[in-house]
Amino acid sequence: MEAQHGYMTEKDKYLSRLRRIEGQARGLHRMVDEDTYCIDILTQISATTAALENVAMALLEDHLRHCVADAVTAGGEEAEEKIQEATAAIRRLVKS
Amino acid sequence: MEAQHGYMTEKDKYLSRLRRIEGQARGLHRMVDEDTYCIDILTQISATTAALENVAMALLEDHLRHCVADAVTAGGEEAEEKIQEATAAIRRLVKS
Amino acid sequence: MEAQHGYMTEKDKYLSRLRRIEGQARGLHRMVDEDTYCIDILTQISATTAALENVAMALLEDHLRHCVADAVTAGGEEAEEKIQEATAAIRRLVKS
Amino acid sequence: MEAQHGYMTEKDKYLSRLRRIEGQARGLHRMVDEDTYCIDILTQISATTAALENVAMALLEDHLRHCVADAVTAGGEEAEEKIQEATAAIRRLVKS
Repeated sequence: MEAQHGYMTEKDKYLSRLRRIEGQARGLHRMVDEDTYCIDILTQISATTAALENVAMALLEDHLRHCVADAVTAGGEEAEEKIQEATAAIRRLVKS
Repeated sequence: MEAQHGYMTEKDKYLSRLRRIEGQARGLHRMVDEDTYCIDILTQISATTAALENVAMALLEDHLRHCVADAVTAGGEEAEEKIQEATAAIRRLVKS
Repeated sequence: MEAQHGYMTEKDKYLSRLRRIEGQARGLHRMVDEDTYCIDILTQISATTAALENVAMALLEDHLRHCVADAVTAGGEEAEEKIQEATAAIRRLVKS
Repeated sequence: MEAQHGYMTEKDKYLSRLRRIEGQARGLHRMVDEDTYCIDILTQISATTAALENVAMALLEDHLRHCVADAVTAGGEEAEEKIQEATAAIRRLVKS
Protein backbone atom coordinates (compact mmCIF):
# COMPACT_ATOMS: atom_id res chain seq x y z
CA MET A 1 0.00 0.00 0.00
CA GLU A 2 1.62 3.29 -1.14
CA ALA A 3 2.34 5.47 1.97
CA GLN A 4 -0.82 7.48 2.78
CA HIS A 5 1.00 10.34 4.55
CA GLY A 6 4.50 11.40 3.74
CA TYR A 7 5.91 10.51 7.16
CA MET A 8 4.59 6.94 7.27
CA THR A 9 7.68 5.48 5.59
CA GLU A 10 9.75 6.89 8.51
CA LYS A 11 7.16 6.26 11.22
CA ASP A 12 9.44 4.46 13.66
CA LYS A 13 11.99 7.29 13.56
CA TYR A 14 9.29 9.86 14.31
CA LEU A 15 7.92 7.74 17.16
CA SER A 16 11.32 7.38 18.84
CA ARG A 17 12.08 11.13 18.43
CA LEU A 18 8.73 12.02 19.99
CA ARG A 19 9.33 9.52 22.80
CA ARG A 20 12.62 11.36 23.52
CA ILE A 21 10.83 14.73 23.53
CA GLU A 22 8.28 13.34 25.99
CA GLY A 23 11.26 12.37 28.18
CA GLN A 24 12.66 15.89 27.89
CA ALA A 25 9.31 17.30 29.01
CA ARG A 26 9.28 14.91 32.00
CA GLY A 27 12.86 16.06 32.72
CA LEU A 28 11.66 19.68 32.89
CA HIS A 29 9.05 18.68 35.46
CA ARG A 30 11.73 16.96 37.55
CA MET A 31 14.06 20.01 37.31
CA VAL A 32 11.36 22.30 38.77
CA ASP A 33 10.42 19.67 41.35
CA GLU A 34 14.07 19.50 42.48
CA ASP A 35 14.44 23.34 42.66
CA THR A 36 16.96 23.48 39.81
CA TYR A 37 18.45 26.88 38.95
CA CYS A 38 16.17 28.88 36.57
CA ILE A 39 18.78 29.31 33.80
CA ASP A 40 19.38 25.54 33.59
CA ILE A 41 15.63 24.97 33.16
CA LEU A 42 15.49 27.69 30.47
CA THR A 43 18.37 25.97 28.65
CA GLN A 44 16.47 22.67 28.71
CA ILE A 45 13.29 24.36 27.45
CA SER A 46 15.23 25.78 24.46
CA ALA A 47 16.62 22.29 23.74
CA THR A 48 13.12 20.77 23.88
CA THR A 49 11.70 23.49 21.61
CA ALA A 50 14.55 22.95 19.13
CA ALA A 51 13.86 19.17 19.12
CA LEU A 52 10.16 19.81 18.43
CA GLU A 53 11.06 22.20 15.58
CA ASN A 54 13.33 19.59 14.01
CA VAL A 55 10.51 17.03 14.03
CA ALA A 56 8.20 19.65 12.51
CA MET A 57 10.68 20.45 9.72
CA ALA A 58 11.06 16.74 8.86
CA LEU A 59 7.28 16.26 8.83
CA LEU A 60 6.88 19.36 6.64
CA GLU A 61 9.44 18.17 4.11
CA ASP A 62 7.73 14.75 3.90
CA HIS A 63 4.35 16.49 3.55
CA LEU A 64 5.59 18.67 0.65
CA ARG A 65 7.23 15.67 -1.04
CA HIS A 66 4.16 13.41 -0.78
CA CYS A 67 0.80 14.99 0.09
CA VAL A 68 1.37 18.38 -1.63
CA ALA A 69 3.25 16.93 -4.65
CA ASP A 70 0.54 14.24 -5.17
CA ALA A 71 -2.18 16.92 -5.11
CA VAL A 72 -0.19 19.09 -7.58
CA THR A 73 0.30 16.12 -9.91
CA ALA A 74 -3.44 15.30 -9.73
CA GLY A 75 -4.12 19.00 -10.50
CA GLY A 76 -7.37 20.82 -9.75
CA GLU A 77 -8.48 22.68 -6.60
CA GLU A 78 -6.92 20.23 -4.15
CA ALA A 79 -3.46 21.44 -5.15
CA GLU A 80 -4.28 25.05 -4.21
CA GLU A 81 -5.87 23.92 -0.93
CA LYS A 82 -2.78 21.91 0.01
CA ILE A 83 -0.46 24.85 -0.76
CA GLN A 84 -2.53 27.27 1.35
CA GLU A 85 -2.78 24.70 4.16
CA ALA A 86 1.01 24.07 4.12
CA THR A 87 1.72 27.83 4.11
CA ALA A 88 -0.56 28.34 7.14
CA ALA A 89 1.29 25.53 8.98
CA ILE A 90 4.67 27.12 8.11
CA ARG A 91 3.43 30.51 9.36
CA ARG A 92 2.44 28.93 12.72
CA LEU A 93 5.91 27.38 12.98
CA VAL A 94 7.65 30.68 12.18
CA LYS A 95 5.49 32.50 14.77
CA SER A 96 5.73 29.91 17.54
CA MET B 1 13.14 31.53 54.17
CA GLU B 2 12.91 33.94 51.20
CA ALA B 3 12.43 31.93 47.95
CA GLN B 4 15.84 30.72 46.71
CA HIS B 5 14.84 30.82 42.99
CA GLY B 6 12.30 33.20 41.61
CA TYR B 7 9.89 30.50 40.48
CA MET B 8 9.69 28.65 43.81
CA THR B 9 6.77 30.74 45.08
CA GLU B 10 4.77 29.53 42.04
CA LYS B 11 6.19 26.01 41.96
CA ASP B 12 2.87 24.15 41.83
CA LYS B 13 1.70 26.20 38.84
CA TYR B 14 4.90 25.44 36.95
CA LEU B 15 4.64 21.74 37.79
CA SER B 16 1.04 21.47 36.49
CA ARG B 17 1.89 23.43 33.30
CA LEU B 18 4.84 21.13 32.65
CA ARG B 19 2.69 18.09 33.34
CA ARG B 20 0.26 19.35 30.64
CA ILE B 21 3.15 19.85 28.20
CA GLU B 22 4.30 16.29 28.87
CA GLY B 23 0.74 15.19 27.99
CA GLN B 24 0.91 17.23 24.76
CA ALA B 25 4.17 15.47 23.85
CA ARG B 26 2.55 12.08 24.53
CA GLY B 27 -0.38 13.21 22.35
CA LEU B 28 2.02 13.91 19.47
CA HIS B 29 3.36 10.34 19.78
CA ARG B 30 -0.19 8.98 19.66
CA MET B 31 -1.04 11.14 16.58
CA VAL B 32 1.88 9.66 14.62
CA ASP B 33 1.12 6.18 15.91
CA GLU B 34 -2.50 6.52 14.66
CA ASP B 35 -1.39 7.87 11.21
CA THR B 36 -2.92 11.31 11.78
CA TYR B 37 -2.75 13.82 8.88
CA CYS B 38 0.62 15.69 8.82
CA ILE B 39 -0.88 19.19 9.11
CA ASP B 40 -2.81 18.27 12.28
CA ILE B 41 0.43 17.02 13.86
CA LEU B 42 2.24 20.22 12.80
CA THR B 43 -0.54 22.28 14.41
CA GLN B 44 -0.13 20.33 17.67
CA ILE B 45 3.67 20.81 17.57
CA SER B 46 3.20 24.60 17.25
CA ALA B 47 0.79 24.53 20.23
CA THR B 48 3.33 22.54 22.31
CA THR B 49 6.17 24.89 21.36
CA ALA B 50 4.02 27.91 22.27
CA ALA B 51 3.19 26.33 25.68
CA LEU B 52 6.91 25.74 26.34
CA GLU B 53 7.70 29.36 25.38
CA ASN B 54 5.05 30.64 27.79
CA VAL B 55 6.61 28.65 30.65
CA ALA B 56 10.03 30.01 29.65
CA MET B 57 8.78 33.62 29.66
CA ALA B 58 7.23 33.20 33.13
CA LEU B 59 10.46 31.61 34.47
CA LEU B 60 12.52 34.42 32.91
CA GLU B 61 10.37 37.15 34.49
CA ASP B 62 10.65 35.48 37.91
CA HIS B 63 14.40 35.11 37.39
CA LEU B 64 14.82 38.82 36.56
CA ARG B 65 12.63 39.82 39.50
CA HIS B 66 14.45 37.66 42.07
CA CYS B 67 17.83 36.19 41.15
CA VAL B 68 19.03 39.06 38.89
CA ALA B 69 17.53 41.84 41.04
CA ASP B 70 19.05 40.34 44.24
CA ALA B 71 22.49 40.19 42.58
CA VAL B 72 22.14 43.80 41.38
CA THR B 73 21.11 44.95 44.85
CA ALA B 74 24.09 43.09 46.37
CA GLY B 75 26.28 44.78 43.75
CA GLY B 76 29.71 43.54 42.65
CA GLU B 77 30.68 41.09 39.91
CA GLU B 78 27.75 38.73 40.46
CA ALA B 79 25.35 41.32 39.05
CA GLU B 80 27.25 41.47 35.73
CA GLU B 81 27.44 37.66 35.58
CA LYS B 82 23.69 37.33 36.13
CA ILE B 83 22.94 39.89 33.39
CA GLN B 84 25.20 38.15 30.86
CA GLU B 85 23.75 34.76 31.84
CA ALA B 86 20.14 36.01 31.47
CA THR B 87 20.95 37.61 28.07
CA ALA B 88 22.44 34.32 26.81
CA ALA B 89 19.28 32.46 27.92
CA ILE B 90 17.08 35.05 26.15
CA ARG B 91 19.18 34.69 22.97
CA ARG B 92 18.65 30.89 23.03
CA LEU B 93 14.90 31.44 23.40
CA VAL B 94 14.81 33.94 20.51
CA LYS B 95 16.81 31.56 18.29
CA SER B 96 14.93 28.35 19.18
CA MET C 1 4.88 34.92 -21.05
CA GLU C 2 3.76 32.98 -17.92
CA ALA C 3 5.35 34.61 -14.79
CA GLN C 4 8.95 33.27 -14.40
CA HIS C 5 8.97 33.50 -10.58
CA GLY C 6 5.88 33.16 -8.48
CA TYR C 7 6.05 36.70 -7.06
CA MET C 8 6.32 38.51 -10.38
CA THR C 9 2.56 38.83 -10.81
CA GLU C 10 2.52 40.81 -7.51
CA LYS C 11 5.83 42.61 -8.03
CA ASP C 12 4.56 46.12 -7.32
CA LYS C 13 3.05 45.04 -3.99
CA TYR C 14 6.33 43.46 -2.92
CA LEU C 15 8.29 46.54 -3.98
CA SER C 16 6.08 48.91 -1.95
CA ARG C 17 6.18 46.61 1.13
CA LEU C 18 9.99 46.46 0.92
CA ARG C 19 10.16 50.23 0.48
CA ARG C 20 8.17 50.56 3.74
CA ILE C 21 10.53 48.15 5.53
CA GLU C 22 13.49 50.22 4.32
CA GLY C 23 11.72 53.24 5.87
CA GLN C 24 11.28 51.31 9.14
CA ALA C 25 15.02 50.52 9.17
CA ARG C 26 15.81 54.21 8.59
CA GLY C 27 13.40 55.01 11.44
CA LEU C 28 15.40 52.73 13.76
CA HIS C 29 18.57 54.66 12.88
CA ARG C 30 16.83 57.95 13.68
CA MET C 31 15.51 56.58 17.02
CA VAL C 32 19.05 55.72 18.17
CA ASP C 33 20.39 58.99 16.81
CA GLU C 34 17.77 60.88 18.85
CA ASP C 35 18.51 58.89 22.06
CA THR C 36 15.07 57.25 22.12
CA TYR C 37 14.26 54.97 25.10
CA CYS C 38 15.59 51.40 24.55
CA ILE C 39 12.21 49.66 24.90
CA ASP C 40 10.65 51.84 22.18
CA ILE C 41 13.49 50.89 19.82
CA LEU C 42 13.04 47.20 20.70
CA THR C 43 9.31 47.49 19.92
CA GLN C 44 10.13 48.99 16.51
CA ILE C 45 12.66 46.22 15.81
CA SER C 46 10.00 43.57 16.52
CA ALA C 47 7.59 45.38 14.17
CA THR C 48 10.26 45.49 11.41
CA THR C 49 11.09 41.80 11.88
CA ALA C 50 7.39 40.91 11.73
CA ALA C 51 7.01 42.92 8.48
CA LEU C 52 10.00 41.08 6.96
CA GLU C 53 8.51 37.72 8.00
CA ASN C 54 5.20 38.59 6.36
CA VAL C 55 6.96 39.38 3.08
CA ALA C 56 8.88 36.10 3.39
CA MET C 57 5.68 34.11 3.96
CA ALA C 58 4.00 35.69 0.90
CA LEU C 59 7.11 34.98 -1.25
CA LEU C 60 7.21 31.39 0.03
CA GLU C 61 3.55 30.76 -0.79
CA ASP C 62 4.04 32.15 -4.31
CA HIS C 63 7.19 30.02 -4.69
CA LEU C 64 5.33 26.83 -3.67
CA ARG C 65 2.41 27.68 -5.95
CA HIS C 66 4.55 28.40 -9.03
CA CYS C 67 8.21 27.31 -9.01
CA VAL C 68 7.78 24.17 -6.85
CA ALA C 69 4.43 23.14 -8.39
CA ASP C 70 5.80 23.61 -11.95
CA ALA C 71 8.81 21.40 -11.11
CA VAL C 72 6.53 18.74 -9.58
CA THR C 73 4.27 18.78 -12.64
CA ALA C 74 7.33 18.46 -14.92
CA GLY C 75 8.47 15.55 -12.71
CA GLY C 76 12.04 14.26 -12.53
CA GLU C 77 14.91 15.32 -10.25
CA GLU C 78 14.13 19.03 -10.35
CA ALA C 79 11.01 18.44 -8.24
CA GLU C 80 13.05 16.85 -5.41
CA GLU C 81 15.64 19.65 -5.62
CA LYS C 82 12.94 22.34 -5.35
CA ILE C 83 11.36 20.61 -2.32
CA GLN C 84 14.71 20.32 -0.49
CA GLU C 85 15.57 23.92 -1.40
CA ALA C 86 12.19 25.22 -0.14
CA THR C 87 12.53 23.21 3.10
CA ALA C 88 15.99 24.69 3.74
CA ALA C 89 14.58 28.21 3.20
CA ILE C 90 11.72 27.46 5.63
CA ARG C 91 14.18 26.16 8.21
CA ARG C 92 16.21 29.42 7.98
CA LEU C 93 12.99 31.40 8.49
CA VAL C 94 11.97 29.30 11.52
CA LYS C 95 15.46 29.70 13.05
CA SER C 96 15.89 33.42 12.34
CA MET D 1 26.90 62.99 32.52
CA GLU D 2 26.35 59.26 33.17
CA ALA D 3 24.82 57.60 30.03
CA GLN D 4 21.04 58.17 30.11
CA HIS D 5 20.18 54.94 28.19
CA GLY D 6 22.29 51.84 28.29
CA TYR D 7 23.16 51.92 24.59
CA MET D 8 24.41 55.50 24.48
CA THR D 9 28.00 54.53 25.31
CA GLU D 10 27.99 52.39 22.13
CA LYS D 11 25.86 54.71 20.02
CA ASP D 12 28.16 54.86 16.99
CA LYS D 13 28.28 51.05 16.75
CA TYR D 14 24.49 50.84 16.83
CA LEU D 15 24.18 53.58 14.20
CA SER D 16 26.56 51.82 11.77
CA ARG D 17 24.85 48.42 12.31
CA LEU D 18 21.46 50.00 11.62
CA ARG D 19 22.85 51.77 8.55
CA ARG D 20 23.97 48.34 7.25
CA ILE D 21 20.50 46.87 7.93
CA GLU D 22 18.95 49.74 5.98
CA GLY D 23 21.27 48.80 3.12
CA GLN D 24 20.15 45.16 3.38
CA ALA D 25 16.51 46.29 3.14
CA ARG D 26 17.37 48.37 0.05
CA GLY D 27 19.13 45.30 -1.35
CA LEU D 28 15.91 43.27 -0.95
CA HIS D 29 14.03 45.91 -2.95
CA ARG D 30 16.66 45.71 -5.71
CA MET D 31 16.50 41.86 -5.77
CA VAL D 32 12.73 41.93 -6.39
CA ASP D 33 13.11 44.77 -8.88
CA GLU D 34 15.67 42.67 -10.82
CA ASP D 35 13.48 39.51 -10.75
CA THR D 36 15.90 37.57 -8.55
CA TYR D 37 15.03 33.92 -7.77
CA CYS D 38 12.63 33.65 -4.79
CA ILE D 39 14.89 31.44 -2.64
CA ASP D 40 17.77 33.94 -2.89
CA ILE D 41 15.44 36.72 -1.69
CA LEU D 42 14.23 34.49 1.19
CA THR D 43 17.85 33.84 2.18
CA GLN D 44 18.52 37.59 2.28
CA ILE D 45 15.37 38.20 4.35
CA SER D 46 16.56 35.64 6.93
CA ALA D 47 19.97 37.38 7.05
CA THR D 48 18.30 40.78 7.57
CA THR D 49 16.03 39.40 10.31
CA ALA D 50 19.03 37.82 12.04
CA ALA D 51 20.92 41.16 11.89
CA LEU D 52 17.92 42.95 13.44
CA GLU D 53 17.71 40.32 16.20
CA ASN D 54 21.40 40.76 17.01
CA VAL D 55 20.92 44.53 17.41
CA ALA D 56 17.87 43.84 19.61
CA MET D 57 19.85 41.44 21.83
CA ALA D 58 22.68 43.97 22.29
CA LEU D 59 20.15 46.74 23.12
CA LEU D 60 18.39 44.44 25.58
CA GLU D 61 21.63 43.53 27.39
CA ASP D 62 22.56 47.23 27.69
CA HIS D 63 19.03 47.97 28.91
CA LEU D 64 19.22 45.29 31.62
CA ARG D 65 22.70 46.43 32.67
CA HIS D 66 21.80 50.13 32.92
CA CYS D 67 18.12 51.11 32.96
CA VAL D 68 16.78 48.00 34.76
CA ALA D 69 19.76 47.69 37.14
CA ASP D 70 19.56 51.42 38.06
CA ALA D 71 15.84 51.08 38.81
CA VAL D 72 16.49 47.96 40.95
CA THR D 73 19.26 49.73 42.86
CA ALA D 74 16.97 52.74 43.45
CA GLY D 75 14.31 50.27 44.66
CA GLY D 76 10.57 51.01 44.82
CA GLU D 77 7.86 50.52 42.18
CA GLU D 78 10.02 51.61 39.24
CA ALA D 79 12.06 48.42 39.51
CA GLU D 80 8.95 46.22 39.08
CA GLU D 81 7.76 48.36 36.17
CA LYS D 82 11.12 48.05 34.40
CA ILE D 83 11.14 44.25 34.87
CA GLN D 84 7.61 43.85 33.47
CA GLU D 85 8.43 46.21 30.60
CA ALA D 86 11.63 44.30 29.73
CA THR D 87 9.79 40.96 29.88
CA ALA D 88 7.10 42.25 27.48
CA ALA D 89 9.82 43.40 25.05
CA ILE D 90 11.52 39.97 25.28
CA ARG D 91 8.18 38.23 24.60
CA ARG D 92 7.70 40.35 21.45
CA LEU D 93 11.20 39.37 20.29
CA VAL D 94 10.57 35.67 20.94
CA LYS D 95 7.23 35.82 19.07
CA SER D 96 8.44 37.89 16.09
